[in-house]
Parts: sequence; structure tokens; C-alpha cells
Amino acid sequence: MPITTIQLSHGSGAGLRALLNEIIYPALATDQTGPFEDAAVLSSFSGRPAFTTDAFVVDPLEFPGGDIGKLSACGTINDLAMMGARPRFLAVALILEEGLDAALLSRVLCSLRRICDDTGMRIACGDTKVVDRGKADGMFITTTGIGEVAEGRALSAANCKEGDSVIVSGGIGLHGIAILAARKKLSFASEAVSDCAPLWDIADRLLRAVPGVRVLRDATRGGVAAALNEIADDSQVTMRLTAKAIPVPGVVHGACSFLGMDPLQIANEGRFIAVVPADQAHKALDTLRGHAPGRDAAIIGTVEKRGRFPVLLTTDIGGTRVVELPPGELLPRIC
Amino acid sequence: MPITTIQLSHGSGAGLRALLNEIIYPALATDQTGPFEDAAVLSSFSGRPAFTTDAFVVDPLEFPGGDIGKLSACGTINDLAMMGARPRFLAVALILEEGLDAALLSRVLCSLRRICDDTGMRIACGDTKVVDRGKADGMFITTTGIGEVAEGRALSAANCKEGDSVIVSGGIGLHGIAILAARKKLSFASEAVSDCAPLWDIADRLLRAVPGVRVLRDATRGGVAAALNEIADDSQVTMRLTAKAIPVPGVVHGACSFLGMDPLQIANEGRFIAVVPADQAHKALDTLRGHAPGRDAAIIGTVEKRGRFPVLLTTDIGGTRVVELPPGELLPRIC
Repeated sequence: MPITTIQLSHGSGAGLRALLNEIIYPALATDQTGPFEDAAVLSSFSGRPAFTTDAFVVDPLEFPGGDIGKLSACGTINDLAMMGARPRFLAVALILEEGLDAALLSRVLCSLRRICDDTGMRIACGDTKVVDRGKADGMFITTTGIGEVAEGRALSAANCKEGDSVIVSGGIGLHGIAILAARKKLSFASEAVSDCAPLWDIADRLLRAVPGVRVLRDATRGGVAAALNEIADDSQVTMRLTAKAIPVPGVVHGACSFLGMDPLQIANEGRFIAVVPADQAHKALDTLRGHAPGRDAAIIGTVEKRGRFPVLLTTDIGGTRVVELPPGELLPRIC
Repeated sequence: MPITTIQLSHGSGAGLRALLNEIIYPALATDQTGPFEDAAVLSSFSGRPAFTTDAFVVDPLEFPGGDIGKLSACGTINDLAMMGARPRFLAVALILEEGLDAALLSRVLCSLRRICDDTGMRIACGDTKVVDRGKADGMFITTTGIGEVAEGRALSAANCKEGDSVIVSGGIGLHGIAILAARKKLSFASEAVSDCAPLWDIADRLLRAVPGVRVLRDATRGGVAAALNEIADDSQVTMRLTAKAIPVPGVVHGACSFLGMDPLQIANEGRFIAVVPADQAHKALDTLRGHAPGRDAAIIGTVEKRGRFPVLLTTDIGGTRVVELPPGELLPRIC
């Protein structure tokens, strides 16, 4: 009988073998012939390895523009891409709640695999655990990636210099608003579609076109505000943004106005900050705008000598306000 | 005010920064000075990389002989060790339930770090997510490891040959029984202490002393029965065990008799199977017995031509029974 619902008995022994053979291996399209070793031995690779891990606990599991599987692949691919590391190998660890719909599991794993295929990343190893009903929330996925940093490349949040330009790769806040709208069934934000996307391709094109790029950082939890505060602190500089230059999609602007939130603090899953020398900013912008996820890229600010605050915003009416790290979790479980 | 309980507000922004600075970085003793990049760039290493991931959902979080932190480090170290890979880098992803005691979190992370320190494995990157109360069970940890396989080493579950000897590295079943006793408060098994231990050191000594070792496999979920069935299937051989040769600690024997369970199907977290050419079996045994976690190592069987069943056991009274993969989850959440 085909598996329709995840049971505790799928957590080990013959039950686990059935779950792997029927649902997980077909979805992930990994080598199903064995031998199944304790660890995958990878082909050697050139360049230095980059290594990153992320646990994904997004609620709901499926949302406009993506699902937990797509998000789990993109999140780790993007963390590697932001270091200029070509994504090579992915480890996928699943925690499944007893009672999870097997068709949903299959869908999200297919999403995950599709992103890996598109990016040329191989799913190298995995693990599956089942916990009793009420002890998890459907499913959690932890992905861990190994990437390959080309010789001589050294992106770091500590690299900014005074006079540099600050670029954002597209309209901000769509992921967080899409999740919030899906979770709370907010009709006024129902057209929000997550920006969730893999960023290796566009990051690679940017780094090839503009070798002087100093920093890349994806603006996930805490949004652009968190990313810029981190960079400013690590580089010991102040960033000054211009409000009217920041691309804020209408649905994000509307929802944030209504809910009293700041678009700069809303999470993205397919947008990043690039800090580049001012004389290369337009080349960078043109490169980003030439590719799908960067169509709405914009220069949003400049790097200044460190002042009292890490990030300042010149408002539409010419005032200045401090852009703060969000105090805590504005939107829990957006990733 | 110091953090005493994990709150949803510790999941992002300034709250997450406080959790990292007060609890997580001090416990893991990782570089706290930044810059905090999206991915860790590792030193290059010789040999081929081995890669493995495991989600840990053990219940209870602390048990005789260990806790979820120790288990999370050992589990991944051991998966690497079983491929003959020196553990080098660890990624640690935490999923924390709102309401988790901060002192408990600190204790289990200190346990995790101690095992890494002892094994010479560096904690290279991590991630922390907080989910709302009732959506996880205290905490889950996913660890992912990168190891280094020495040139020319090629352990595989497909390597067994007829005539080989099957060795177990110590008394079996203690981890599963210790977890069960702690969870169900079984007084008759209360002296069971988990065998949870990092196995790189003993595996490395064995591989140096006996270069002919064909297979190493730790006997975790599904116990020795699952490990041997997997190896027998991958090598297309039959393994014949001798019941009286199998080291079963008294407390495991007693608990299994009482509960109607088979010690061969009980999980271990510090025991492994080694398959070696018969003429090197005694050298292997002596090497294992010379080091703490291998003191009770024993030759428990031989490899035969593939018959109808993957694993057979000659019983104490001279009969033969099939040793099966456990049908499903005998003891949920033992790791």
C-alpha cells in the first residue's frame, strides 16, 4: 500500500527504508542503488571550501512563490553565493511530524531538488527523523551546503570603504509580507508573492562583471536593516540611505503602512545587498538589471565615515532617521 | 537581564544577537569577534572530503551517559569515522522551542563542544531558529560534518568477502535501553548508561593497525541487526552470527527479556561493526580491546556466500534464526 501519511514507524528500520524508497529518493532523484554509506565521499574540488547551515521552520509550509523545500535550497545556496562560493554539495536533514501528508512532503522535496538542479548543486547526503504528533509543526528542514570559493576571491562584511555605493538587488519585503499574508489570511496583501530565489547565477555574473565588489549579503531575517547594520558594524562605517531610492513594491508599502512595519525590516529570500566602489556602481547596476531577479536593482546609499549610528536614512522630506536592527522577532518563522 | 528562558523574540534581530552573545557563542567557544559572514570559508585540506548530516530529536534531552548535545556531536563524528574520515568541520543548526530553559541549552551546547574539542573537530558555522511553544519538543539539533578521507582509503559496506570476520566493538544496546529507562522511568533498567561516545580515535587506531579493514558501520537506529542487514545487502553476502559470542550487558539482557525485545535491534551510539579479513581478526580485536570504548569487543560471526537471508544467528542451543531489520520504530526518538 502506498504511503499517504507519515507514521512514527517510518522513523527507522523497514518503515524508514519504505519512506526513503517511495517518497524521498524519487523526489530528490538521488542515487537509489546504494551502497548507502554513513557519509558521502565527495569528488575533490579546486578552491577553498565554504560551509554554511540553516534550519528552516517556515509557517505555512507552502506559500505564494514557494514552499519550505524551495526556501531550504535557496537559503543555503544564497549564503554560499554571498561569499562568492559556487554551490557544490547539499546535505538535507528532515524532521517530520507524525501525520504529515506524504504528497505534501513529496511536493516540497521536488521543489528543493529543482532549485538544486537549476543551480548545479548535488544533493550528497541526508537524514530523516520522525517525531510524534504535536512535537513538531508538519516538517522542519535543515540544509547544509559546501561551496567552492575561487582563488583570490575574498568577500567579507568587513571590506566596506568610505565612498562605496550600496546597492539592493530588487524590490524589498515581498517574502515576509507573502508569508504573513498567507499565515494570517490578510486579503489586502494577498497578491504578495515571495521573492524566494536562488542567487548564485546573478551573484556569479555580478562578480565576473565587477571584480571589485566588496561585500554581498542577502537580506533575510531582519531584512535590509539587519544586513546593513551587520555590514556597517563589521566594517566600522556608517551607511547613509536615501529613502526615495529604495525599491519598495506597492503591496509591501501598503501592508507595512497598514501594519505599522518598516519595509527595511521585512525579510527577503531572493534579495541581496552589494557594496561596490562608487566608480563601479553603474556597471554593477547594469549587470544586475540584466538578469531576472535583479531587474529592479537600485543604488540606495553610500558608505560614510563611522558616525554615532551604523545606518542612517534620509527621508523623503529630507530628514534623517536611524535604521535600527529590529528589536526581536517581528514575523516569527518566516524562514 | 540575563536570558533565563528562550523567547520567540530571540529568533531574530537584536534578540537573536543577545542569545548568541550570552548563551550560544560562550558555550560553543567559537570566534565571537566577527565579522559574521554568510558562510565559513575553510582552510583547504588534503584528501577527499566526506560529508554527512543528522537531525537529533532525542527524548529526553538529557539522559544517563549523555545529552542531545553530546549525541549530536558523536553521531556526526561517528558517521565520518565509519568512512575512515578524520572529522574536521562541524555545522550546528538549532531549532529551539519557546520556553526552553536557557541553562539546559547552555549545558547541552557545552557537551557538544567538549566532544568536538576532544576529537579535534572545529565548529565552523551554525544557525538558530526559535519556534512557538508547542511546535517543537524543547530543542532539535542538526549537525553536519566534513571529514577528510586519507588517500587510498576506500571503506564501503559493499566490500565484504566470504570468509571475513565480523567484529562488534563492545557491549550492545546500552543507548536504547538507557533512553527508554529515562523516558519511561523503568526502575529495572535504571542503571543503564548510554554508550554514546565519539569513535574517531578508536576507528583511526584500528585502521592504522589493520589496514585491511573492509567495512566500518556504527550500529545506531535499528541496532546491530540493521547495520548487518545493510552491509550484507550491499555486499551481497550472508552474515552468520554466533549468539553466545555477542556481548550483551546484563542490564540490556534483563530489560530486553522483560520487554520482549531483541538486543540486536536496540540502538547504540558508541558501538560499531568492523568486517575484516579472517587472518587479521585477532589483530583487530587486540587493537580494539586496548582502548576504552572497545574493551568488550568480540568476534561475533563470519561472512558466508549469499544465501536466502542476509543475516543468520546460531542460537545458544544450536538452532538458526533469521536476524531481521526491525519492522519499524521500536523505540521512537532514541537519537
